[in-house]
Amino acid sequence: PAKHLEIEVDKIKANPGEHVDLELLRKTLKEKHYTAVTLTHVDTSTGVLADVETVSKILQEVSPETLFIVDGVCATGGVKEEFDNWKIDVILTGSQKALATPPGLTLLTFSKRAIEKRNSIKPRTYYGDILKWIPVMEDGTKYFATPSVNLFFALHQSLKDIFDMGLENYFKKHEDLARRVRNAMNELGLKLVAKRPAPTLSVFLYPEGIDDKTFRGRLKDHGVVIANTLAELYGKGFRIGHMGSITKDELLVAVSKIAETFEELGVKVSKGNVINAFLS
Amino acid sequence: PAKHLEIEVDKIKANPGEHVDLELLRKTLKEKHYTAVTLTHVDTSTGVLADVETVSKILQEVSPETLFIVDGVCATGGVKEEFDNWKIDVILTGSQKALATPPGLTLLTFSKRAIEKRNSIKPRTYYGDILKWIPVMEDGTKYFATPSVNLFFALHQSLKDIFDMGLENYFKKHEDLARRVRNAMNELGLKLVAKRPAPTLSVFLYPEGIDDKTFRGRLKDHGVVIANTLAELYGKGFRIGHMGSITKDELLVAVSKIAETFEELGVKVSKGNVINAFLS
Repeated sequence: PAKHLEIEVDKIKANPGEHVDLELLRKTLKEKHYTAVTLTHVDTSTGVLADVETVSKILQEVSPETLFIVDGVCATGGVKEEFDNWKIDVILTGSQKALATPPGLTLLTFSKRAIEKRNSIKPRTYYGDILKWIPVMEDGTKYFATPSVNLFFALHQSLKDIFDMGLENYFKKHEDLARRVRNAMNELGLKLVAKRPAPTLSVFLYPEGIDDKTFRGRLKDHGVVIANTLAELYGKGFRIGHMGSITKDELLVAVSKIAETFEELGVKVSKGNVINAFLS
Repeated sequence: PAKHLEIEVDKIKANPGEHVDLELLRKTLKEKHYTAVTLTHVDTSTGVLADVETVSKILQEVSPETLFIVDGVCATGGVKEEFDNWKIDVILTGSQKALATPPGLTLLTFSKRAIEKRNSIKPRTYYGDILKWIPVMEDGTKYFATPSVNLFFALHQSLKDIFDMGLENYFKKHEDLARRVRNAMNELGLKLVAKRPAPTLSVFLYPEGIDDKTFRGRLKDHGVVIANTLAELYGKGFRIGHMGSITKDELLVAVSKIAETFEELGVKVSKGNVINAFLS
């Protein structure tokens, strides 16, 4: 989006599975003034969990006037994310990830200084401009544009379910499912990409001899659809989400079908061990 | 939006209930070159149906290179709107009006020259940019961003229902409901604002002695919510939609409660006559 909208950016990249070098970040922030730093809390393509808290501390130390924007898309709701304590200025996320609502809503949180910043720049959008929505949020009888009413009800129900369960328990549910999926995949000889893995999704590399398209095609025939890996990892593994409303039973079926497909493709598999690894 | 996005515009206004002077339009188009002309097919605030076909003919005659953009929001699906024959370049509409789908989707149709125009200008948006969506529409396995999947299913079902009924019959359903609502309201002494009324909604002016807030408040207590009039007409009447999935029975209830509320507010009403006017 930055390139598309002609916003000048510098990128600090990490190798797949690793996270950004924090010393390099510190150095970069010292060399040049940045209006904002953006960080993806959980990287969808590798399943890496960023250390948002530490990045925040570096920012506070080296460049406290820089806005801190966190992309919470595979994180918000499923993993601890402290807006105030971590001095975040904007968190953006989608409804369809850990918040367990159908896709279609963008959720945004702004700090006071982020709103002030918006006030001092030209708008680049009309319907998406937070300043247009604030009056409606403050007074529900006011009108700006018709929102996705049905999705609001769905989100409300999801949030109610999550808070009924308790946020800590909801985090634990994600950690528990992550552990089960990873234990099962380890048993199948698959390697997790992320060195600091998120509890919301896992990205695995195939063992020797598994062809991506053949594997995912066969798995689909068994009724399980999983996503391919992207960019540098394309064709080398697959991604499996275990966040939001997904249940242990659904993942049990997925894991079992993955084991079955591996067996069909000539990998020596003990399905019992795989299922045990998932269940224990 | 134009002002917000710093697009230079000239407006041709009509008095409430009337439509734009077509000779003035012709004169204006001769005086200055415009990149685009926008026209609202059915005006939400007054219920006026614009003569899109005639405006198109004027454009073809005087300024054929100007893009013709039609806001179809209270029209598309509910009233004849001929994209090709009327040489429209863009129609935009929402899912929640005559297309009878929950709110949340924007539907857009582009002519070839509108897409060419987009190619030659700088983007002002990222997710809303049609160029980002064309590859996905041409090949469903491609990815740009996650759309409102549930709403797509709902829209698909709505369109199926509409085409099962037949577009002409669907138009007739709107005309029939419009006629019934208007007959009933005439019986109550209410005046339609629009001189050229759309079949999808009606805006009525109150008879003497009805206070807007009292009336709509009481009506709400009876379980019927109707919208207020806007701008110059604020407080002088109300708006009632009869498009999309609304049924004759729902409107019968609304009309009956409106009559009841009028009676409560001291207007001499024959509820039987009002209901008869609706039903016959």
